[in-house]
Amino acid sequence: MKEFELINRYFKGRGITRRDVDLGIGDDCALVSVPENSQLAITTDTLVCGVHFFEDIPPRALGHRVLAVNLSDLAAMGAEPTWVSLALTLPSVDLEWLEAFTEGLHEIAEYYNVQVIGGDTTQGPLTITVCAKGIIPKGKALTRSGAKVGDWIFVTGPLGDAGLAIEARKQGLNITPENKQDVEKRFYFPTPRVAAGQVLRGLATSAIDVSDGLVADLGHILRKSNVNATVQVEKVPVSEAMKATLSEQERWPYVLSYGDDYELLFTVSDTNKSTLANKLKQYGVEAKCVGQILAGNGQLELTLRGQKFALPARGYEHFSNE
Amino acid sequence: MKEFELINRYFKGRGITRRDVDLGIGDDCALVSVPENSQLAITTDTLVCGVHFFEDIPPRALGHRVLAVNLSDLAAMGAEPTWVSLALTLPSVDLEWLEAFTEGLHEIAEYYNVQVIGGDTTQGPLTITVCAKGIIPKGKALTRSGAKVGDWIFVTGPLGDAGLAIEARKQGLNITPENKQDVEKRFYFPTPRVAAGQVLRGLATSAIDVSDGLVADLGHILRKSNVNATVQVEKVPVSEAMKATLSEQERWPYVLSYGDDYELLFTVSDTNKSTLANKLKQYGVEAKCVGQILAGNGQLELTLRGQKFALPARGYEHFSNE
Repeated sequence: MKEFELINRYFKGRGITRRDVDLGIGDDCALVSVPENSQLAITTDTLVCGVHFFEDIPPRALGHRVLAVNLSDLAAMGAEPTWVSLALTLPSVDLEWLEAFTEGLHEIAEYYNVQVIGGDTTQGPLTITVCAKGIIPKGKALTRSGAKVGDWIFVTGPLGDAGLAIEARKQGLNITPENKQDVEKRFYFPTPRVAAGQVLRGLATSAIDVSDGLVADLGHILRKSNVNATVQVEKVPVSEAMKATLSEQERWPYVLSYGDDYELLFTVSDTNKSTLANKLKQYGVEAKCVGQILAGNGQLELTLRGQKFALPARGYEHFSNE
Repeated sequence: MKEFELINRYFKGRGITRRDVDLGIGDDCALVSVPENSQLAITTDTLVCGVHFFEDIPPRALGHRVLAVNLSDLAAMGAEPTWVSLALTLPSVDLEWLEAFTEGLHEIAEYYNVQVIGGDTTQGPLTITVCAKGIIPKGKALTRSGAKVGDWIFVTGPLGDAGLAIEARKQGLNITPENKQDVEKRFYFPTPRVAAGQVLRGLATSAIDVSDGLVADLGHILRKSNVNATVQVEKVPVSEAMKATLSEQERWPYVLSYGDDYELLFTVSDTNKSTLANKLKQYGVEAKCVGQILAGNGQLELTLRGQKFALPARGYEHFSNE
């Protein structure tokens, strides 16, 4: 199958059609219109086979995941996702694989009202890069740099499940089939917190998505905002599957530093704390307060039931062995 | 070296700073402002090692090339390039290689006033995806679908040199060192026709960049515009290096169907023909008329000095063997 046929078959005329897309797939560029008084948010994430996913990942999950991780970055800015470009490098053309992959991709794209406006299909080792765009009312974006002393630190949902899914497979942990299914679903089909991100606008002081683990990602906020923080680790929400599978002591590396969960971590002033938590509840999001911002220059202190708590592990970083 | 250090060292604070970039590298997304009464043009191109370039390509050339091929797509729409996202997948961290690669990238970015606003650095087989964005006054974009019967077909410069560079290396053609250097420069450091593309606005009826060869790329215009065309192949411009290396008969596959030249191919009405050619000359671009648009449904006729001319070869297509 030739590149043009492949694009026509799996991408052109499929998925949703947004009114702000003036020209979609099929020319040298796509053309879109950005509404007045808006800013455009742009993010790019690559998934490499064998690095970011196992070779035998269900292709439908991969299609979902590659979009989800990008939409999660838009969510962390409070942006409304609009358009994505897809660069798909494939070792060969496997029609069944492509059908499932694009089904997963179009499914999540439709759910979030996102249009695939173009891309590039090339031959080579399986690698997928998405460049996602979204819009935000001017000046309303949530950055990593706005946390203030006294702000409370929240997380939108349980952490550690994606790591548990990966390690259950790698190490063969003692996990029930039901719990394995639960955490695998969170790893394969992560939910970008798109609505929550938009609710945070004007209320949260900073936000980030938890892709590298709570400790690493909160660290970005602390350094960018030039503040310290204290986190009571026992307050970090965990799933029933996590509780049933690992002892409290075993859990910490997953909960605090594994990443891949794609929950939002945000800070909010004492004044707006309850308003925001209630608004999120209306969207079905049970955000939990896990700590507070303190004066300082980027340091994070962890406590466990009032005692200092030390965790050596860090967020996942590419090339960190070199 | 860790991902964060790598990004700080080679990307953050380097290159130009545009006033329409509200937030650059270092947060979940970049934030940019699109001027009113403009459309945003978006394109993505991937280069895979061993498929789009030889493994020993000078890294400075690769940095140039990956941006150039994307800017060429923006040029073909008549867009003014503004921002790019870079997804860089590297097998390992080679500081010398990265220094040269980013030098090549920043050099061309600065020349065209383009800012690198973000990206993703991952570990894996060498693959580079750029997503480039540009702006166009509303309604002024050049598409593939506007060619009209009677329009003249132009190309902005000599074709076939990039193919000659590749085959000189693969086959060991009989080529002088000077000519080899000339064509290699065109392959390694292609010039996206950014200024020419903007000159075409409001004058050309359609445009495309020659990435897959004249026959294949003109074919896109013909099918999208639902017209036929005739091209006098002897009128297609070729370089001195090409003339000195290959006989006329040997040249045709390079000139007509090799691709990778990144000249613009465009159509213009009889009324605007001279105006446009003169305006391009002011920008140092000697566009050559190579044929004319005829009534029809997507067919291309080639002639050589008045006789029908047949060429079996086609533009380069990924997966075309499958």
